[in-house]
Amino acid sequence: MIQKGILVVVSGFSGVGKGTLMKKLVEKYDDYALSISATTRDPREGETDGREYFFHTKEEFQKMIDQEELVEYASYCDNFYGTPKKYVEDQMRQGRDVILEIEIQGALKIKAKYPDALLLFVMPPSAAELKERLVGRGTETEEVIAARLKRASEESDGMEAYDYMLVNDRLEECVEQMHTLISAQRHRVNRNLEFIEKIRTEVKRFTKGE
Amino acid sequence: MIQKGILVVVSGFSGVGKGTLMKKLVEKYDDYALSISATTRDPREGETDGREYFFHTKEEFQKMIDQEELVEYASYCDNFYGTPKKYVEDQMRQGRDVILEIEIQGALKIKAKYPDALLLFVMPPSAAELKERLVGRGTETEEVIAARLKRASEESDGMEAYDYMLVNDRLEECVEQMHTLISAQRHRVNRNLEFIEKIRTEVKRFTKGE
Repeated sequence: MIQKGILVVVSGFSGVGKGTLMKKLVEKYDDYALSISATTRDPREGETDGREYFFHTKEEFQKMIDQEELVEYASYCDNFYGTPKKYVEDQMRQGRDVILEIEIQGALKIKAKYPDALLLFVMPPSAAELKERLVGRGTETEEVIAARLKRASEESDGMEAYDYMLVNDRLEECVEQMHTLISAQRHRVNRNLEFIEKIRTEVKRFTKGE
Repeated sequence: MIQKGILVVVSGFSGVGKGTLMKKLVEKYDDYALSISATTRDPREGETDGREYFFHTKEEFQKMIDQEELVEYASYCDNFYGTPKKYVEDQMRQGRDVILEIEIQGALKIKAKYPDALLLFVMPPSAAELKERLVGRGTETEEVIAARLKRASEESDGMEAYDYMLVNDRLEECVEQMHTLISAQRHRVNRNLEFIEKIRTEVKRFTKGE
């Protein structure tokens, strides 16, 4: 009996190191599948279709929406971003935990559709540290920095909707904590109802002298 | 800033090894305080007041009920059993996780009063193994065995009300899992609202150029 995989949503401030975290997690543990988003934005240099994103035209994307092939989607800066349903559900059926790196709006849609989904929010050790990472090494224009800070401010709304938060202070430690939090879900009672029912039926049989 | 301790309820079939589990957990980790129940039943040989139980007369126990000094209580075989409130709340305030070994009725009362309480159910690896442990080494009368099996059957009702289940197959492993599940609660968003609010306030301040 394979237990269905866990659907994990990871959100957090830009610059907090979510990408590195998840890369390490996937390298270290074989249990995880990283979902790849579909998008209508153009590939940037070095990006490969099916690795960073699945790149689609707006027409193709609209067709995916119409045919309900996405578990969630959102538009951002005139482009669409979405999570293809087939990959997510295939992996979960095979018992693999699927990780989606998406923002709060998508996270809430996922939770509505998959109430057992685990919502994780990655925090910086402090706001000052976050600012330092966003301001960068002095090579960015003031405009870019202002846009990043504004975005962080927006990202800070809605954290309360998440189940758990992690502080990305030391990378290795944070990877371990993330793995522990996800694995713990396998012990949830509502993920083990078959086993529970089996034990209960047998125990009740004993009392009847069977 | 000390985070408040976690209130943990541990239930499970008689004979499943809850007592040994919790003894090991407390020996291995310093984070835990085992709550000691109050009871009106007579001490058995070798039992010490304040170690296994706090022993009270029925009058004293009734007074504790009237003065709301118990977080939960129940009667069983003509005797009262209850959890003294002061110890539980003192320990939690000091940041220690408090473990209560109680049955389903008590567990539900705790959850109603302390919605953040963590409810764990300890399962045997199989019903056959549980039966073996309950039947014992052939030294018990049929009557005792029948009573034990009947009790197990009753204990199997209501498992769905718990948050997590643990299988006590290998003791050391189960102790580790219990510690992991409890520790994970420290990352719950609703246990970190102060930290979250602090980061949010500071991040919003940046965008105002402060």
